Amino acid sequence: MTSAESNGNYPGKGAGAPVGVAILGKGTVGTEVLRLIGEFSNNLEQRIGGPIEVRGVAVSNVEKHKDAPEVQGLLLTDDAHSLVERDDVDVVVEVIGGIDYPRELVLKALRAGKSVVTANKALVAAHGSELADAANEAGVDLYYEAAVAAAIPVVGMLRRSLAGDQVQRIAGIVNGTTNFILDAMATTGASYEDALAEATRLGYAEADPTADVEGHDAASKAAILASMGFHTRVTFDDVYCEGISSITAEDIAAAKKANQTIKLLAICERLFNEDGSTRAVNARVHPTLVPNDHPLASVDQSYNAIFVEAEAAGRLMFYGNGAGGAPTASAVLGDLVGAARNKIHGGRAPAENPYANYDVVGFDEVETRYHVNMTVNDRVGVLADLAHQFADSDVSLAAVRQEESGDEAHLIVVTHKAREKDLREIVDRLAKHEDVRAVNSVLRLHD
Amino acid sequence: MTSAESNGNYPGKGAGAPVGVAILGKGTVGTEVLRLIGEFSNNLEQRIGGPIEVRGVAVSNVEKHKDAPEVQGLLLTDDAHSLVERDDVDVVVEVIGGIDYPRELVLKALRAGKSVVTANKALVAAHGSELADAANEAGVDLYYEAAVAAAIPVVGMLRRSLAGDQVQRIAGIVNGTTNFILDAMATTGASYEDALAEATRLGYAEADPTADVEGHDAASKAAILASMGFHTRVTFDDVYCEGISSITAEDIAAAKKANQTIKLLAICERLFNEDGSTRAVNARVHPTLVPNDHPLASVDQSYNAIFVEAEAAGRLMFYGNGAGGAPTASAVLGDLVGAARNKIHGGRAPAENPYANYDVVGFDEVETRYHVNMTVNDRVGVLADLAHQFADSDVSLAAVRQEESGDEAHLIVVTHKAREKDLREIVDRLAKHEDVRAVNSVLRLHD
Repeated sequence: MTSAESNGNYPGKGAGAPVGVAILGKGTVGTEVLRLIGEFSNNLEQRIGGPIEVRGVAVSNVEKHKDAPEVQGLLLTDDAHSLVERDDVDVVVEVIGGIDYPRELVLKALRAGKSVVTANKALVAAHGSELADAANEAGVDLYYEAAVAAAIPVVGMLRRSLAGDQVQRIAGIVNGTTNFILDAMATTGASYEDALAEATRLGYAEADPTADVEGHDAASKAAILASMGFHTRVTFDDVYCEGISSITAEDIAAAKKANQTIKLLAICERLFNEDGSTRAVNARVHPTLVPNDHPLASVDQSYNAIFVEAEAAGRLMFYGNGAGGAPTASAVLGDLVGAARNKIHGGRAPAENPYANYDVVGFDEVETRYHVNMTVNDRVGVLADLAHQFADSDVSLAAVRQEESGDEAHLIVVTHKAREKDLREIVDRLAKHEDVRAVNSVLRLHD
Repeated sequence: MTSAESNGNYPGKGAGAPVGVAILGKGTVGTEVLRLIGEFSNNLEQRIGGPIEVRGVAVSNVEKHKDAPEVQGLLLTDDAHSLVERDDVDVVVEVIGGIDYPRELVLKALRAGKSVVTANKALVAAHGSELADAANEAGVDLYYEAAVAAAIPVVGMLRRSLAGDQVQRIAGIVNGTTNFILDAMATTGASYEDALAEATRLGYAEADPTADVEGHDAASKAAILASMGFHTRVTFDDVYCEGISSITAEDIAAAKKANQTIKLLAICERLFNEDGSTRAVNARVHPTLVPNDHPLASVDQSYNAIFVEAEAAGRLMFYGNGAGGAPTASAVLGDLVGAARNKIHGGRAPAENPYANYDVVGFDEVETRYHVNMTVNDRVGVLADLAHQFADSDVSLAAVRQEESGDEAHLIVVTHKAREKDLREIVDRLAKHEDVRAVNSVLRLHD
């Protein structure tokens, strides 16, 4: 083998050398990155050991951007491929978005020996292993702190700070749009539709909010967090994903009454064998009932927060703005300093390293707890009959509560931990039971 | 110049080479570090790129430790100097504590080209610049994540994640003992003395609690955070330090009534000129009134939490166990993986880099807000008279409240921001005023 991977020693250019940077994309984040590179140039040079020199900015429409103040004096081009190929480019910053086009560019950059900083969660969640392999083969860095929760440094924390520990579980609010909507529903009693309209009006939700409200954005982040945390390749397709579009004002009100808050959580979990060894890992996204005294319950507005449990470190939480031009650019710049330092001083950042290679199991195999709200016939013995249905499937109940309202009765059932698959089967069975008029909501509980 | 600093390129040994480690000290943290190195050895090797080999453990009393399970098969010695000097030691882990003796050993290690991981906040706060210079000269790493808030990765975050941003302010609860005592006083209404006794009984406070309760421990951490955050050398002696031993049950009760919580905060602040440029920096530790809706107010028991405000990233918070054998060892191991990776793959971690070299001003020059509680003579016009005292010094008042209790009156004054020095002078003057029977408490407010 002659690749950089085989000798594992990565020399640098030496102190004082300039680091050439190509910026791909000039949307909100790209613009802010360029602005900060200008504002902080002296600081960046001191922290890196050599000056940052922007070799060019690639955009799809040069005409549209050519008068922007932050590109004056810089090469502006619609030929991203040629910019990436330039010999004097050491680090490529990808802030385009999308998957196929940036994938081509990032692979080209890595294969040409350039380090890459990307904020693109969809790209990393779909093709992270291909990119990591290319980076390893070329002996360069691939950074993506900004892909998860913007400036909240959770990727760096998993990459470095917890490098001597064993991560057991990660549970996070990693999508600001859905947290804004759920918080607005909880605060004002609004319906999902009204809260979404308000989020759109205020710019927290995009015109097409699907990727946010159906949990796809959070699922990309869950895939990245699980890959880093468990040293196992977890892709977007491995992540069970359920959004918030079916959450009703009644669900929110019922949660509040029970001193709980509904949050869309990304959960990455290690599953154990009886001897304490790791059996597999799982990653998923779904609305979750969080007890009000848990720190995640009080994360309001569009804030993000990530809870990490590690064997030695215990419980850690990180909180901050999980989106927005400036916070995302802060994360990109932090990565750029790291990649540029390594170009100067040698060495490589710890890469995605899937050595543990655990089985990634689907959600069916995971143990969860259910909170089921049903409308049932108001007859004597219905509670006992339905409770039996759970007992017959070996699912043990933590609480059953019956509430009368007019001529209907509501039955609220809270289970102990059981396999997701078994719980779902019971709920499907109950939905067809003659005494069950409707299953109003099924929510999982966080513990 | 022929030092490593001058060429700024740091080659490694190459993948697969073993990394020799010396462990200095085998108290709670050292023991846990040895245990985790054993438990996680395969993980560590995969993450580093070569195996960790412990060359020896230095203790003051070999006899006392020789039967401990975690040192079986290892060299146990009371000659730390010889252990550090060994050619096959690449990284030295210092978990002894104290200042002068570990300083000698750490300097010897750095000068001999060994990277150092230390958990010793007092050493770094007192001699950080001397150690950083030695590390720079030799081109090796000096890591100390565990010196501040154990496994909460705030040092790494300042070192790396925010490397492309500008830190404006850091405010943190960085001492678990004092947070436990203040939380117990707030929860149970206990006196300071009783809460301290309880903390001692439960092992949260040491037999001699001075370093914790007088704020010295927090001040060391403030010096380290300010140095990293502001790229300016700030030492323990630069940090104004006021502990919690004079906080009374009455202070706590009064804070609660005003929807505030008293926390011992380490505050590192950037001071600005009128044009927005940085004038100076300040670091200090004192009891502070924190509004109950601020995330720091709800940090209970012995937990730590650190709030960081940066120009682009906005407000970030980090929360977790700030002390204890396992969390501290987690941080040490994370650093050890980083130092060992660089020994294998080359490169260096970003070092303390005081290039900004701001003036470090004393507390007198900083603007704060005061909350003053006085017992005054109950006569007509006393409120107006005393309020005039503030006006005469150009200190503007946010609120003045008079409360009768029996034949005394309490006057509570809350100021707007003014220079600490001016505020202190007014309080000194008021203490001598004929209508003031006693100044019961003076607390600063967090905003």
